[in-house]
Amino acid sequence: MLRTHHNGELRMTHLNQEVKLCGWVSRIRDKGGMVWIDLRDRYGITQLMFDESRTSKTILDQVRSLGREYVIAASGTVIERVAKNDKISTGEIEVLVTGLEILNAAKLPPFLIEDETDGGDDLRMKYRYLDLRRNPVRANLELRHRMAQETRKYLDAQQFLEVETPVLIKSTPEGARDFVVPSRMNQGEFYALPQSPQTFKQLLMVSGFDRYFQIVKCFRDEDLRADRQPEFTQIDCEMAFIEREDILGTFEGLVRHLFQHVKGYDIGEIIRMSYDDAMRYYGNDKPDIRFEMRIATLKGHDQDMTGGQGFPVFDGAETVLAIAATGCATYTRKQLDELTEWVKRPQLGMKGLVYARLEADGSIKSSVDKFYDEGALRSWATAAAAQPGDLILVLAGDEALTRKAMSELRLEMGNRLGLRNKDVYKALWVLDFPLLEWDEEGKRWNAMHHPFTSPRPEDLEKLFSDPGAVKANAYDMVLNGTEIGGGSIRIHDRNMQSQMFEALGFSPEEAEAKFGFLLSAFEYGAPPHGGIAFGFDRLCSLFGGSESIRDFIAFPKNNAGRDTMIDAPSAIDEKQMRELGLNGKTVKR
Amino acid sequence: MLRTHHNGELRMTHLNQEVKLCGWVSRIRDKGGMVWIDLRDRYGITQLMFDESRTSKTILDQVRSLGREYVIAASGTVIERVAKNDKISTGEIEVLVTGLEILNAAKLPPFLIEDETDGGDDLRMKYRYLDLRRNPVRANLELRHRMAQETRKYLDAQQFLEVETPVLIKSTPEGARDFVVPSRMNQGEFYALPQSPQTFKQLLMVSGFDRYFQIVKCFRDEDLRADRQPEFTQIDCEMAFIEREDILGTFEGLVRHLFQHVKGYDIGEIIRMSYDDAMRYYGNDKPDIRFEMRIATLKGHDQDMTGGQGFPVFDGAETVLAIAATGCATYTRKQLDELTEWVKRPQLGMKGLVYARLEADGSIKSSVDKFYDEGALRSWATAAAAQPGDLILVLAGDEALTRKAMSELRLEMGNRLGLRNKDVYKALWVLDFPLLEWDEEGKRWNAMHHPFTSPRPEDLEKLFSDPGAVKANAYDMVLNGTEIGGGSIRIHDRNMQSQMFEALGFSPEEAEAKFGFLLSAFEYGAPPHGGIAFGFDRLCSLFGGSESIRDFIAFPKNNAGRDTMIDAPSAIDEKQMRELGLNGKTVKR
Repeated sequence: MLRTHHNGELRMTHLNQEVKLCGWVSRIRDKGGMVWIDLRDRYGITQLMFDESRTSKTILDQVRSLGREYVIAASGTVIERVAKNDKISTGEIEVLVTGLEILNAAKLPPFLIEDETDGGDDLRMKYRYLDLRRNPVRANLELRHRMAQETRKYLDAQQFLEVETPVLIKSTPEGARDFVVPSRMNQGEFYALPQSPQTFKQLLMVSGFDRYFQIVKCFRDEDLRADRQPEFTQIDCEMAFIEREDILGTFEGLVRHLFQHVKGYDIGEIIRMSYDDAMRYYGNDKPDIRFEMRIATLKGHDQDMTGGQGFPVFDGAETVLAIAATGCATYTRKQLDELTEWVKRPQLGMKGLVYARLEADGSIKSSVDKFYDEGALRSWATAAAAQPGDLILVLAGDEALTRKAMSELRLEMGNRLGLRNKDVYKALWVLDFPLLEWDEEGKRWNAMHHPFTSPRPEDLEKLFSDPGAVKANAYDMVLNGTEIGGGSIRIHDRNMQSQMFEALGFSPEEAEAKFGFLLSAFEYGAPPHGGIAFGFDRLCSLFGGSESIRDFIAFPKNNAGRDTMIDAPSAIDEKQMRELGLNGKTVKR
Repeated sequence: MLRTHHNGELRMTHLNQEVKLCGWVSRIRDKGGMVWIDLRDRYGITQLMFDESRTSKTILDQVRSLGREYVIAASGTVIERVAKNDKISTGEIEVLVTGLEILNAAKLPPFLIEDETDGGDDLRMKYRYLDLRRNPVRANLELRHRMAQETRKYLDAQQFLEVETPVLIKSTPEGARDFVVPSRMNQGEFYALPQSPQTFKQLLMVSGFDRYFQIVKCFRDEDLRADRQPEFTQIDCEMAFIEREDILGTFEGLVRHLFQHVKGYDIGEIIRMSYDDAMRYYGNDKPDIRFEMRIATLKGHDQDMTGGQGFPVFDGAETVLAIAATGCATYTRKQLDELTEWVKRPQLGMKGLVYARLEADGSIKSSVDKFYDEGALRSWATAAAAQPGDLILVLAGDEALTRKAMSELRLEMGNRLGLRNKDVYKALWVLDFPLLEWDEEGKRWNAMHHPFTSPRPEDLEKLFSDPGAVKANAYDMVLNGTEIGGGSIRIHDRNMQSQMFEALGFSPEEAEAKFGFLLSAFEYGAPPHGGIAFGFDRLCSLFGGSESIRDFIAFPKNNAGRDTMIDAPSAIDEKQMRELGLNGKTVKR
């Protein structure tokens, strides 16, 4: 035993005990006659004390040779501090050191090992093992640990079985690109790394496993955007003999359990919203419902509150949308100009911004008074549920573009008004997604979720006649405007699955080559089943109040897919290439 | 809700309740006026009953259209059975069915879905999703689930943090071959799949994580022998600021916990044995200590109880070894001849077998009476701890070969005598392994565990002068003659690690290229640390009383590394090849 206690443990109850502690030298204060060291480990900080009148010269000499991040073992007596520190759990005591051993020296770290560091991203990634020493980074991974344990505890109690599915599987180039693994024993052939265990979990349902889960690594060879990782982790689940309602209930339960047991937070009601309503009222399929500010459609395909007044911008627009920004009627001309510039940025591409002030005294004035009388403006205010003091913001243009821009403007106003507090959590289910979406480039229909999602039975007849109108029996869970999980009731009938492949433009031969095993499995007694997968990295980052999933992954890769610490990927030996029957170019780095 | 209960749930307390059940048709008994169906799911079997006097004709017609493995939902009333079945938990009741829905039809399975099946290995692997429907196979995976949950529960309570380490890492061709993954974004470069998270867990110790664990997939591109899988699972653990004793205590605790909570079994004392003693007394480094029958060295480098009597076989042998087979003095000539043939098989390669009977009356007779008098034979009997009634078996020859053969003979006699009961478990630690082993082919020293294992401090000076004599601070846990886990106290000093790489024949440049990040990490304050990894597949198979790890993996690969169910590995598209900058041959299957 190199230590009797860790550094977060000692209290007044330990006074006068002989103890031995280990850790990293976090800070040294040398006041001449006395020296203090903050000794740090995962559990906390304990103050070591050295006193010329009580500490031997040998030890004092040793102490003065120490540097930051040295690893030491110190033995001594727990004494009461003269100046107590109520910021740390061990702040009432210190250890008067009588024995000191230097376990390892340390070079000066390339950046400060403090909560706020001076290290830039690149440096911190290269020395990730030092970055991980920082309390906030370690706290993120402790949170992740706790999330994983609580997830398992909940699902185990619900009779889910954790089953490991294979990592070396078969390439099915649907959706994202697969990472592939050349097979040495079967030259010219490749394994693929799973984008998800989708087909395996469905096979487990065919096998009668009834309830399956796994916290599992998945892989996508995508061009990385910020906050995408080539390997990521899912909470992957599937249930048999269930309907949508069973899934929603079970996984509301999971999210509720995690909030309760990891954060001591009551998530409250988890409302449900159709995809159509989400698009209509929030302009996207993952609405942030921490605040209202719903989008009102002043002009759309089934109504028009803007026409016939000779305002060419609205008259020529497919869609006119409004929101009521709470309490913003007092916005200055300058603020409004700035907001107008904001919506005109290329990312949003709006031509301009119309506004109307519903003053605190109830009067109403707009930037389009020339065209619209008070009655018209009041009808807009009513549509946008504006209250006296609110500012009504109106965008017009092409439906898809305008709705997306209004969604962004709504979120921006939410930010400006402080309505998107990261300590407040609101979750909802978004239901009834379209089954298919048109791929303009490929001139074909793609599955919006994946090809195993079942259509709503009542829409089935439209699969070939009106594919875009078919709704899927699919659901997403959305937390604070971020999709954290999604799933569907699956197809479990071989014929329906074959039809689905056909609707997606697979020839029967292609379908057989890629998914023959699944089609075959459906012939041997497949139960009705469905499931869901949560993005675990993202879920952890939301629980940790962070925007970045990278902060919640121990050893993440950068945007070029590289691990700069270990320098991967890298060239491999010629011999390895030959053994694999590969003949690619090799690079020297 | 497709069901109100599962099929292992209904009891006499549910009598007269209206219930709805789902599951697979396991068996149909049609007695004309009455039909019974065994309805099966993961939780059990419930008997459904159809009675011409009480069941509608429509339903009876439906029932008579059902086949084995059809998926149905049945609603009805719980009634008391006339003929109770005490073999199943629901055996006191049955359900009189009033409503029946066929959820899915099923083709006749290619083999029987019964505990004992008529399906061969190949067929069962191709239709693994049907094989998994069989109770014993599912029970294995339920055991595995339970093992994983209990492992996490124990380690979490011991303050271990579960940290996911990356799967896409860097190739370090040490030990087994790596699987590699071509990088599309960094063409000509490759990721490798980890053979273990070894370096990452050590970095986590440098980061101050203090206690780490992970139940993690690892990968080795080896030529597969029976019961080796290209992907396998480890319980991977590491601790900082510890000595060997801390590791042994912590992981004895884990194994004890698993036996207690998964099997309700008290594993008893876990003894410790040096590698040298294990080799001396059991002939291998993973002794089965469920039975004694220790090997006695009658002649070795430091003693000789066989010389000077003119027996050329022993006089010319490097080593003479004996065991006492309990109660086998009565073996017939025929049995002894058969045993002699057994040791002469090429796998063992012995020239012959000498024996001595210590009769029940205390007299002693041997096959070498011509050369050895009673005194000599009695000294052998004493050395082998033979009791009256035992048969002393003696092998002679080259040290390594003979000890290995005697180890096999001992295990064989243990089998024949029923001393290797798979319901009895005995575990031990084997300690103080050699640090290095001589690779005759490569003419170099290899690390017996891996290059990060620390030598015993007292042996350090022999690292270059007498490498073979250096013992490692390493330990294996052995259960019933199988290694279930192994680990070591690691090197945490940069200079010692560099020396170790040198002793293994790495040039400083090679060491830097492969492990520079670790050497660098050791300069920034690395704590003393050590760890262990358990083979999770193997551990589960031992708990399940099976020899085969494949029975405890949901979707295993065959000996050619193929998944015959999904048909992987397989050819990939030309387009994928081009995108990866690969130019290997492709095959058509």
